[in-house]
Parts: sequence; structure tokens; C-alpha cells
Amino acid sequence: MFSISHEVKFYETDLMGIVHHSNYLRFFEEVRVAWARAKGIVDYQKPETASFLAVVDTAVKHKKPCFFGDHLRVDIEGKMEGVLILFQYRLVKESNNEVAAYGKTSHVGLNKDYKIQRLKPELVKLLEKEIWTETWHLNL
Amino acid sequence: MFSISHEVKFYETDLMGIVHHSNYLRFFEEVRVAWARAKGIVDYQKPETASFLAVVDTAVKHKKPCFFGDHLRVDIEGKMEGVLILFQYRLVKESNNEVAAYGKTSHVGLNKDYKIQRLKPELVKLLEKEIWTETWHLNL
Amino acid sequence: MFSISHEVKFYETDLMGIVHHSNYLRFFEEVRVAWARAKGIVDYQKPETASFLAVVDTAVKHKKPCFFGDHLRVDIEGKMEGVLILFQYRLVKESNNEVAAYGKTSHVGLNKDYKIQRLKPELVKLLEKEIWTETWHLNL
Amino acid sequence: MFSISHEVKFYETDLMGIVHHSNYLRFFEEVRVAWARAKGIVDYQKPETASFLAVVDTAVKHKKPCFFGDHLRVDIEGKMEGVLILFQYRLVKESNNEVAAYGKTSHVGLNKDYKIQRLKPELVKLLEKEIWTETWHLNL
Repeated sequence: MFSISHEVKFYETDLMGIVHHSNYLRFFEEVRVAWARAKGIVDYQKPETASFLAVVDTAVKHKKPCFFGDHLRVDIEGKMEGVLILFQYRLVKESNNEVAAYGKTSHVGLNKDYKIQRLKPELVKLLEKEIWTETWHLNL
Repeated sequence: MFSISHEVKFYETDLMGIVHHSNYLRFFEEVRVAWARAKGIVDYQKPETASFLAVVDTAVKHKKPCFFGDHLRVDIEGKMEGVLILFQYRLVKESNNEVAAYGKTSHVGLNKDYKIQRLKPELVKLLEKEIWTETWHLNL
Repeated sequence: MFSISHEVKFYETDLMGIVHHSNYLRFFEEVRVAWARAKGIVDYQKPETASFLAVVDTAVKHKKPCFFGDHLRVDIEGKMEGVLILFQYRLVKESNNEVAAYGKTSHVGLNKDYKIQRLKPELVKLLEKEIWTETWHLNL
Repeated sequence: MFSISHEVKFYETDLMGIVHHSNYLRFFEEVRVAWARAKGIVDYQKPETASFLAVVDTAVKHKKPCFFGDHLRVDIEGKMEGVLILFQYRLVKESNNEVAAYGKTSHVGLNKDYKIQRLKPELVKLLEKEIWTETWHLNL
């Protein structure tokens, strides 16, 4: 399992005093990019390499509100499903190990003209080796 | 059907040249607040009235990328489902009437201590009268 | 004077219950793009035309906090200053005509390689005809 | 001197392929909160303690564009100036030690009703001991 740690920023809160729900998709992107970079897929010198991750759909299930200063561990797992890449996520509060949210995003390879393109063989091979925990998904 | 119009801002784009996917949840919130305000539920003088809309889950299905300057019509429909309020959304490009995205969010009443609270009867009554188009949902 | 109207969104607030200060630069961009588009400089079909507006510096002076649902009128004025384009802004609460903030941004023409480029003569001519209210600037 | 490290996120870029200028104020907030927390002023268990940092004005000077994946060191220095707290910032690209931006924000103590309140003596004492590099300021 691949994870990052994210500390909730003041600017990520809203007037309810909690993290605005749109930011969860940003936390997921943060761990997804870190995962892709750790695997050698995204090259920061060539930002267009991040574009293979074009988003097809997203889903988030909120279990607990997150607050300013919370330390969140964001877990990610990936797998292939036909032409799509699926990622699922789990947000865990580091202070008490509670799950704050589950998430899911699916992606497709796009070229510069926003047309679907075949995934690189090395990425397909890499995803075949990933772990996929079925229970996360059941929460969505 | 209730709708707003949203013109895509420069700051809503990312380096792929399209609207960043996290912003779709903000467009949905924009129409949800406008809907709630038009129905007399959200009172801007009492921002805490917006808090009844605490987000439980969200889902977005992307059909077409959106670009800087695009004029989007954002449609919303709501209904009750047990203790939850469900909203569904449709994003339509005004230039060519193409659907850019479908979405769904569910909500629960929360008080200031983030505990679930019963929905006000006038809101329940209001939601019972709303239209719900089953076909939007099928895209999610 | 050129102006737009902006209604404060829920997602633009933070846990202090007011608009997060980083959003003021987005409101300024919103009116700047609207101004440039009204003048025929920015063409939404060619998003790269917006890039001439590369930001060199920004300044904001806050006079009053802005709240969820506030209707803000955002005024803009522009002028040339050597190789730079200067814009200044005034945020006015429509409910009571109070000034909520003043702002200033300066810009330079950049090409696709992030190198400075000469401004188009039609833009220079246009800016020479703009009004510039000296008193806004004094608040910064 | 107090510093944090910030890695530029995909969602912090815009269609020019660089970090959107509004995000610099968020980077400054990030280091300011980290500074205040390191000094024992902001307590994450009491988010209202962050509110003493109400923003009066902000200024940013951009020297170099920042890109997706850039590692930025964000330096901060603080001092008192009458009733205001001043902070100044320097953004340095860790890859080549180039300064990407300078910044400045000033703040005032506000209570929950958005009224100015006197700063706590321990904060005043703390700020008197801080270093202030005059040359950063000259760039603004």
C-alpha cells in the first residue's frame, strides 16, 4: 500500500469549520501523483506526463469531518479495468486511526488533443502487480 | 428544473488546459445554494442555515472536458431518501447543448456540534414536490 | 469604469466565516478577464490570448470582511507604465456601498516560453484611453 | 529564519502551465501557520487561535514562474509595527536556489465579532526577538 501524509491547511476549511468537500479530490490527486511519481510514470520535467491521468469519474464517501491542523494519512491502491485505470483511496486520521473518508476515481489515457490513447505497457504491467482491497470499495 | 449559468474562470483551469475536476463539486454547490436560497431555506444573513447541507457523499461523471470561458448551464434536482437529501446535477455546454458531466451528492442535517439532526418539515415537504429525472442517475 | 458583480460562494469562505484572502486575487482576475474580453483582447477560443496578462506583482488592502452571499461589485481601471500594464481594483459591497478592499496588479506580456514580449499596439492604444483614479491607489 | 518546504501540486497550476498567482498567498499562509504553531501561538485544538492572524494587506512580487512538481522553500520573518504584525516571505526554488517570489502580509488581532483586539504580550515579546532582513522588502 502507498500512502502520503497531508496536514489540513487553514485555506482548506470553510465557514462550517471543516475541510471543504471539494478538497478531498485534491488530496486524492496529491497521493495519486506521488504514487505515479514513485513508480516512475510522472516526470515533473515533463508535466504532460501527468495528463495520462485524465479523470473520468470520481466518488467520495465522507465518514468523519476533518479539521484545520488534522494530520491525514491518504492511502491509495490502483488497478486496470478494461481501458480504465481505477484508483481507490482511504483517508485516515493519524491521531486516532479513524477513517475519515473513502474515495474512488477512474482515469483514461488522453493525448494532447483530448483523445483517448492506449496505456503504456509498463503502466499496465505495474498495475497488474498492485494490491486491491475489496472492502474499501463497499463503502462507496 | 432549477438551473444556474456558470462561466469558466481562468483560475478554475489546470495545466492540462481544462477545468480541474475538483471544481465540479464547487459548481454543484453553487447551484445547490442558489436552489436552497430560491426556496427560502438558506438565509445569507444566517450563514449557519447553509450547514444543513452537510455532504455525505459525492459522485461526478465526466463526459466532455470544459475550457476557460465555457458557458455552462448547471441543472439540479433534489429528493428525500430516508434521512438523506439527494441532489443530482447535469452540466450542459450552452454553446452546443452537449452534456459535459453528471453528478450526485447526498446530504444530512447537522447541528453545530456536527451531530445529525432531523430535517425541518418545510424542507421535507418541498423536496416531495421536486421532479427527479431517472436517466441522469444512470450515467453515474 | 468597468465592473462586474460577484456573489460570494460558500467554498470561498474559511473557518473564520469570511472570504479567504487569497480569493480576492481571483475576483480581480475575474474582472480583468471580463474587461479584456469586453475590449476584444482575450478570445476564449484561443485561451493563450489570456497569457499576455502574466502577473508580475499583486497587492490587496482589506477594509471590511466579506461574507457568504455578499454581492460585491468589482471595479477595474488599467494603464500603461513603461513595459508594464497596471490594473487597480475596488471591491464595493452592493448592500451598503462600503468599500471592502482595494487592489493592484501589474502584468507583462509573455510568450509561450515565458519570455517578455512587446504589447500589441491595439492594447497600448486602448490603455491610453482608460481612466485612472488616483485615490484608489493611495489606499494600498 | 523559519522555513517550510512546499511541493507544487497539479491542482495549483493553471492553463499557462504555471502556479496560479493566488496560490502564493496560500503558501505564505502555510508557512505563517507553521511558524505560529512552532512558537506555540496557534493551537490546532482551538482553531479560533488562528484568527488573531486576520489579514489587513498582502503584496507579492513574482520573479520566476513556478511549475508542477517544483520544490519551494518558503522563508518567513515577522515583526511588530504599531498595532500591526508584519510578515515577509521569500520563495526559493530548491533545485537551483533562485528566488521565485517575495511577499508581505500585515495582520491585526480580531475577536469573534471581527473587532480589533490587543495582541497577547507573549506574542509581542516573541516578535521583538525575530530577525527582519531589510533587503527582502526592497523587492516589493
